[in-house]
Amino acid sequence: MNTTPLPATDLLDRIRVVLSHPSHPGNIGAAARAMKTMGLSRLVLVNPKVFPDAQADAMAAGATDLLVQAEVVASLAEALSGTTLAMAMTARRRELAVPALWARDGAAELATLAASGDVAVVFGNETSGLSNEELALCRRWAMIPVNTDFSSLNLAAAVQVMCYELRLAAIDPGKPPAISGAGLLASHDEVERLIAHIERAALSSEFLDPASPKRLIARLRRMFSRAAPEKEEVNILRGLFAALEKAGSAPIKNRADPGNKT
Amino acid sequence: MNTTPLPATDLLDRIRVVLSHPSHPGNIGAAARAMKTMGLSRLVLVNPKVFPDAQADAMAAGATDLLVQAEVVASLAEALSGTTLAMAMTARRRELAVPALWARDGAAELATLAASGDVAVVFGNETSGLSNEELALCRRWAMIPVNTDFSSLNLAAAVQVMCYELRLAAIDPGKPPAISGAGLLASHDEVERLIAHIERAALSSEFLDPASPKRLIARLRRMFSRAAPEKEEVNILRGLFAALEKAGSAPIKNRADPGNKT
Repeated sequence: MNTTPLPATDLLDRIRVVLSHPSHPGNIGAAARAMKTMGLSRLVLVNPKVFPDAQADAMAAGATDLLVQAEVVASLAEALSGTTLAMAMTARRRELAVPALWARDGAAELATLAASGDVAVVFGNETSGLSNEELALCRRWAMIPVNTDFSSLNLAAAVQVMCYELRLAAIDPGKPPAISGAGLLASHDEVERLIAHIERAALSSEFLDPASPKRLIARLRRMFSRAAPEKEEVNILRGLFAALEKAGSAPIKNRADPGNKT
Repeated sequence: MNTTPLPATDLLDRIRVVLSHPSHPGNIGAAARAMKTMGLSRLVLVNPKVFPDAQADAMAAGATDLLVQAEVVASLAEALSGTTLAMAMTARRRELAVPALWARDGAAELATLAASGDVAVVFGNETSGLSNEELALCRRWAMIPVNTDFSSLNLAAAVQVMCYELRLAAIDPGKPPAISGAGLLASHDEVERLIAHIERAALSSEFLDPASPKRLIARLRRMFSRAAPEKEEVNILRGLFAALEKAGSAPIKNRADPGNKT
């Protein structure tokens, strides 16, 4: 038994996106684009009304390779051949023989099973959805939570949401993007030096009571922590305080101070 | 202070979706549709190139009410007036002055802050995104995790993903839809009676060794548990076993049995 974990991108390559009887070629193209943005690649079309088509190409933008590689088959059974799990996406709250999963949990199950073989997520026709016969071919059913007063999710939008969930289920995105312009944010030490500078200036200007400077400095520290200042901003402030200290080597006695020194 | 929690739908009403300088009216309409499917309603357009427009209406499908109510303003600053948090959606891994959040965490923060006032999620132009000046007006930046080899998310698709996350952040979807056709699934008791029937038939046919029938029955029970059979399916099987029992009141001696009775 192979115990090496499959690379996440290979997991996504094992997930077929099946569009059954799509009416609008534009939706096929937009679905291909949605898939590719999330790293999925295997598009299977069951009896598309119009395909290939210039409108599909136009909506695919840079994802026309997925259209070129798309498999076109005559029945959903054929589309599912070789899969170990087929999950039907359904919008209608019909008489469900099997309780549906929410999209997020469905994506997690698909991604898990993709480790051991091909799986498929199946979308029906724009207007009529999947037929009962098609639903019966799918072991699992999943739904995207929607506004029940307006549940009219566009086909490509549904593909987008599900592929987004599949990507998150298959690939830990890690930490959010780090700062690429190294050093743009001020370091902890730089911020601390700024705060020390402010404290010094506040004391020498008699703005702060030397006996109890703690609370105000603590508040400023908290503010700078929230602000996450850039190096340049720290430098500006330090320059400003240095200039003020120099200008008023005599303490700034007459500044309006609404009651700090109670 | 009002401690009554805000209804989730009101939370969604406090989230402005701001499209800055959108070029294609079709994208405005598709964004409105995406918003409405997720229960969001407040669309703000900063200097749209073409609006209103028939193509926007066409792509909005049943969400033209959002287009009619959309605010059109001249600058992002105006669009953000009165908000307590503006979150910029960005795709470029540019020099970030503030670390970005992933869309899911960003949506959680927006939904949380919506409890105390208006918030905004801001999307830039289809080609050029948000300008540095616009980004500087937003306190938070968020990104949708994408395939770095093809990160070209359509504007309306990005709105769809973010509104989906906002809906999930604001509204607990509860359990997945339950079976609406009451009684379609067989009850636990019905399945147990079926299993008892099978056990009886298996013993009387001498398929099972009366001394140790347990393991096989346990396996069948597990299979039926996975299958979650419908009432009708249970009835079919019970009818079948009854017919077999009747036909072979004489035990089915000669059935091919590949080594059950080791």
